[in-house]
Amino acid sequence: METKHPEVANWFKDLQDAICDALELADRKGTFQEDRWDRPGGGGGRTRVMKEGFVIEKGGVNFSEVYGRTPESVKESMQTQEEEFYATGVSIVLHPHNPWVPIIHMNVRMFEMSGGTLWFGGGIDLTPHLIIPEDAAWFHAELKKACDLHEASYYPTFKKWADDYFYIPHRKETRGIGGIFFDYLKPEKDKTFEDFWAFVQEIGSSFAPIYTELMKRNRHHDFSEEDKEWQLLRRGRYAEFNLVWDRGTKFGLQTDGRIESILMSMPPLAEWQYNHQPAENTPAHFTLQHLVKDFDWLSY
Amino acid sequence: METKHPEVANWFKDLQDAICDALELADRKGTFQEDRWDRPGGGGGRTRVMKEGFVIEKGGVNFSEVYGRTPESVKESMQTQEEEFYATGVSIVLHPHNPWVPIIHMNVRMFEMSGGTLWFGGGIDLTPHLIIPEDAAWFHAELKKACDLHEASYYPTFKKWADDYFYIPHRKETRGIGGIFFDYLKPEKDKTFEDFWAFVQEIGSSFAPIYTELMKRNRHHDFSEEDKEWQLLRRGRYAEFNLVWDRGTKFGLQTDGRIESILMSMPPLAEWQYNHQPAENTPAHFTLQHLVKDFDWLSY
Repeated sequence: METKHPEVANWFKDLQDAICDALELADRKGTFQEDRWDRPGGGGGRTRVMKEGFVIEKGGVNFSEVYGRTPESVKESMQTQEEEFYATGVSIVLHPHNPWVPIIHMNVRMFEMSGGTLWFGGGIDLTPHLIIPEDAAWFHAELKKACDLHEASYYPTFKKWADDYFYIPHRKETRGIGGIFFDYLKPEKDKTFEDFWAFVQEIGSSFAPIYTELMKRNRHHDFSEEDKEWQLLRRGRYAEFNLVWDRGTKFGLQTDGRIESILMSMPPLAEWQYNHQPAENTPAHFTLQHLVKDFDWLSY
Repeated sequence: METKHPEVANWFKDLQDAICDALELADRKGTFQEDRWDRPGGGGGRTRVMKEGFVIEKGGVNFSEVYGRTPESVKESMQTQEEEFYATGVSIVLHPHNPWVPIIHMNVRMFEMSGGTLWFGGGIDLTPHLIIPEDAAWFHAELKKACDLHEASYYPTFKKWADDYFYIPHRKETRGIGGIFFDYLKPEKDKTFEDFWAFVQEIGSSFAPIYTELMKRNRHHDFSEEDKEWQLLRRGRYAEFNLVWDRGTKFGLQTDGRIESILMSMPPLAEWQYNHQPAENTPAHFTLQHLVKDFDWLSY
């Protein structure tokens, strides 16, 4: 099907370009390589991957625009019978070398069904291997600023949604310090398409300034062998969340999506140790104690 | 509930002891450390882990005996309403240092329900990072020998079951070269409890001789940096299978099992690269071409 809003995918493509440029500039060594791909049922994407940058060890900034017959699994999970769908979005995961630079994830997307239903989703969340409280507070403050430009209830609502979504039940830990997560933003009486679209653009545009600042702050941070090992263990948790619990990843794997684009979110190297416990009074221990839901980083 | 067959758990405990002894002897450096644990709802286990042996980088040999109220998820997946269950088994995953020594997995288990339903399950399967065809053929021949002592149809039936079970749909690859897998072996007219129990004991007993032989054959095998990198990538696939598709792991994660015992199967270190393809005419390429269902290793 054709979208009623071709401006969305066009803007998402420009966003992908702008983010890649900003990250290359901030990394000062790595460059993105592009793979263009077609989806057999309709549409395709531009997968862009950076490998072995100075700051970024492995990162992906993906754009996709896919459409066609609605997969059965989508019909089930969305409880819809609409025959055709259209979806476009930008999806990012960055794994840095230095354990003091956080892993980041961003996604912005629009979904449209042939019957006319349309919604936006997305979010930004941060997974520090080792939490730096000032950076965590600053990150949440930046997200709140972006949200508050549109609606005072957005930050608290979407912050809680992120805490609940990026939770690893089998570890009883959050994946990181959260951020914002939103989905099913459907234009209705009080909010128009334009309202939500402006909000989604706000979030998309806020990504590069936020992450390049965190890169700059910590790219030269000293780290020990213990910090590096802890990073590999936290990456193991990241892999667990993505493979076991992340709805987007599961959806991709079950609907025969482009596997290398879906799993570009996986860490370059990850470790699992039996029953590892960080020693008390270490930054790792502090971090683990703060991987909990509903922690108010703004007031830290 | 109490089991009608306490001899099974007793034998499984002895099997765990015997396998740990055999592996320590074959490794010549590593030793197993034991954690005993209790399950809040009833029962518990003995988790034994080897770390940084000479051959084995990370390995677990676990015994468990658990019982109590049947979890809702078990009722659903087994389509039963029986209120109480009992389950006991031995479960093993070994990750070696040398990429030419294969990863191995074994499991033997008995399940009993309060209404009287009882079944056995289990299997052994091999995941070489780099396939050595003679070893693969020998491995399957050993399993066939063990099966043939009990029933001519077992090896072909359970070999196919393993191929189907240890398959990674999103990669369109098998996890390794398979082996045997069986489940729901319920005593009925033609096969008694004693028949199946003798078979399960046969499989359990065959594990140590098979794997220690493979350790011996390849513990000093030369390997390159490329072999080592390929090993890390294959371990990534192993992690993907376990976290995304393995029924046992999913069951454990969803029913709040003892997480460190369930995930002791995870590799010590694993790698993900975007779109990695092995060069043609390399052992890695040969391996990838043979990670397919229904390959007849016996006739290689």
